[in-house]
Amino acid sequence: MAITVVGSVAYDSIETPAGRRERCLGGAATYFSLSASFFTGVRVIAVVGEDFGPEQEAVFKARYIDTRGIERAPGKSFFWEGSYLENLNEAKTRTTELNVFASFEPKIPEAYRDSDFLFLANIDPVLQKQVRDAMPGVKLVAGDTMNYWIKDHRAALERVLKGLDILLINDTEARMIAGNNNLVQAARAVMALGPRFLVIKHGEYGATLFHGAASKNGERTFKAPALPLEEVVDPTGAGDSFAGGFFGYLASQAELTPGAFRRAMFYGSVMGSFACERFGTERLEQLSRGEIDARFQAFRELTHLD
Amino acid sequence: MAITVVGSVAYDSIETPAGRRERCLGGAATYFSLSASFFTGVRVIAVVGEDFGPEQEAVFKARYIDTRGIERAPGKSFFWEGSYLENLNEAKTRTTELNVFASFEPKIPEAYRDSDFLFLANIDPVLQKQVRDAMPGVKLVAGDTMNYWIKDHRAALERVLKGLDILLINDTEARMIAGNNNLVQAARAVMALGPRFLVIKHGEYGATLFHGAASKNGERTFKAPALPLEEVVDPTGAGDSFAGGFFGYLASQAELTPGAFRRAMFYGSVMGSFACERFGTERLEQLSRGEIDARFQAFRELTHLD
Repeated sequence: MAITVVGSVAYDSIETPAGRRERCLGGAATYFSLSASFFTGVRVIAVVGEDFGPEQEAVFKARYIDTRGIERAPGKSFFWEGSYLENLNEAKTRTTELNVFASFEPKIPEAYRDSDFLFLANIDPVLQKQVRDAMPGVKLVAGDTMNYWIKDHRAALERVLKGLDILLINDTEARMIAGNNNLVQAARAVMALGPRFLVIKHGEYGATLFHGAASKNGERTFKAPALPLEEVVDPTGAGDSFAGGFFGYLASQAELTPGAFRRAMFYGSVMGSFACERFGTERLEQLSRGEIDARFQAFRELTHLD
Repeated sequence: MAITVVGSVAYDSIETPAGRRERCLGGAATYFSLSASFFTGVRVIAVVGEDFGPEQEAVFKARYIDTRGIERAPGKSFFWEGSYLENLNEAKTRTTELNVFASFEPKIPEAYRDSDFLFLANIDPVLQKQVRDAMPGVKLVAGDTMNYWIKDHRAALERVLKGLDILLINDTEARMIAGNNNLVQAARAVMALGPRFLVIKHGEYGATLFHGAASKNGERTFKAPALPLEEVVDPTGAGDSFAGGFFGYLASQAELTPGAFRRAMFYGSVMGSFACERFGTERLEQLSRGEIDARFQAFRELTHLD
C-alpha cells in the first residue's frame, strides 16, 4: 500500500573523514522515499526552489516515486551543511538555510488522498500536525523529530505525538523527550505521550522496538543489529533510510503481525547500513532488491543462534 | 570440563544510584567462578587476607567451586571502592588497596593440573603469563584485561595476548589496545596480537564476537543482545559474569562448534544481566539454572525473527 511522506527535499554539503561533497541531493523525505521505494509506492510532499532541476527529479523518477506533491517555489531549496569530522555518530551543523522551506505550506495532491500509510519526516511539528489532520483516512502514521523541536517546540511536538502510531528517534532524542537517562524508562515515558510503537536507534549498536508497555524483562521489545561497518563513508540520512526500510516494509505487508514488525526492524537496519556506505544518496540510487535481501540474510546470520 | 581461573577475590565498597554497600564480597575471580559454576566445575587461584572468613568461603562452596587454590596470607584482602553515581556504565575508582595482592605469587594446586580450560581474569599480565605457562596442557585459554595494564604495561600484556585463544574486553579497551576508534578495525588489530576469538562488550548494547579475519560485511561476527534493563542496581562484576557464562558454557560442550560459540555469547549476556540486578554477588548467589534458561529464551525472543 502506498505511503505519503512529508518532509524536506534539500541540498547538503557534507564533510566526513572519508571526504567532502558539495550540494548533493539530500533531505529527510528524499532518503526516506528512496529507501521505502524498494518495498512499496511512495508519494512525496515537499517544497523545492528553482535550483531543483531535472537531474534531481530523475533520482526520484528512477525509483518510481510520485513527485506531484513536490512544489516548486521561487528562491532556493533548503540547504544544510554539516561535518562529521569530530564524531561520526553526530553531525555538527555548520549552516542551515531554510530558504523556500521558511514559508512551506504542505499541499496534498488529490491523488495522494487514498494513501494508507503516512510518514511525517523531521520538520516543524506544526506542519506535521497539519498534514496528519488533512489525511484522516490513513491506517498507520509514523514520524520522526529532532533535538531542536524537542527543546523549543515542545507543545507543538506533543500534539503530533498524540496522533502517531509509531515514533522513530535516536537514544539522545528519547532521553531528551523523557528527561530520563534510563532508556527503558525513557521509552515508557515517550509512549505515554502517544505512539503505540517506539523505535529507538542506537547508531552502530542497532535499534530497539518498544511496543505495548515496556516491561522489566524485555518481553515487549525487539532488537535489530547494525552491521559492524568498517568504513562509514557518510552517516547523513541513515536514520531516514532506516525509517524508509522499516515503514516501507510494513506498508508492503498484507497484515501487520508481530513478525512483520520484526522483519521491518531488520529491513530498517539494512537500509540504514547501505545509506552510510557512500556519500549522500549515492548508494541508495545504485541499490537492488537482491542486495537488500542478501544483507537481510547477513543480519539473520549475525544474530540468530541457528 | 573443568575451568581453572586466576584472578582477584576481594572486598568491594560500591555506590550506585540504587544505594551503597560496604565491603561486599567481590573480585573478578569471584564473579567469574560463581557465574561459570552454573555450567561446569570451577577451580580458583587467588590470594586473600585474614579478613576472608567462613562466610565468604561458603559462597564458593554453595556453588561447588574448588577453593583449594585460594591462598590465605597475613594481612588484608584486596579492597576496591568505586562509584557509579556519575555514570552507570563506568565505575569511578575511589580507592584501590592491593594489600595481600601486592606480593601474590600464584600457586597451582596439583588437583587443578588436569583442567582443560583456563581463564586469566583481570590481574597483572606478568601473573597471567606465569599461570598460563605453568599450565601448558590446557585446551583453551581466555582472558580479560583493563585500561591500567593497556596503558602502562603494554609489553607484558602483549606477551599474554600471544598465548590467548579468546580475549574478552569492552569497547574502550579494544579502542585503546588498537589505537583506533573504528571498532571493526580495532578488532582486527587486537586479533593480530594473538587471540583467535575476540569478544567486545558494549554494556547496555550487548556484545560482539569477532572470529577469523573480521570482514567488511560482518560475516565473521556474531552479536548477542543485552536486556534493556530498567533498573541496573549495580554493574560491578557484569563483565566477569559475562565471561563466566560465556567460558563456562563453552567448557560444558563436547565440541566447540560455531553454534556453541553463539550460544555461549547469549549465556554470557544472560549472566551479565543477572549480575547487575542486585548489589555485589547477591543475584548470582540466589540464581537457578531454570532462571538462566528462561532468560536465554527471552534473549532469543528479543532478537530472533521467528
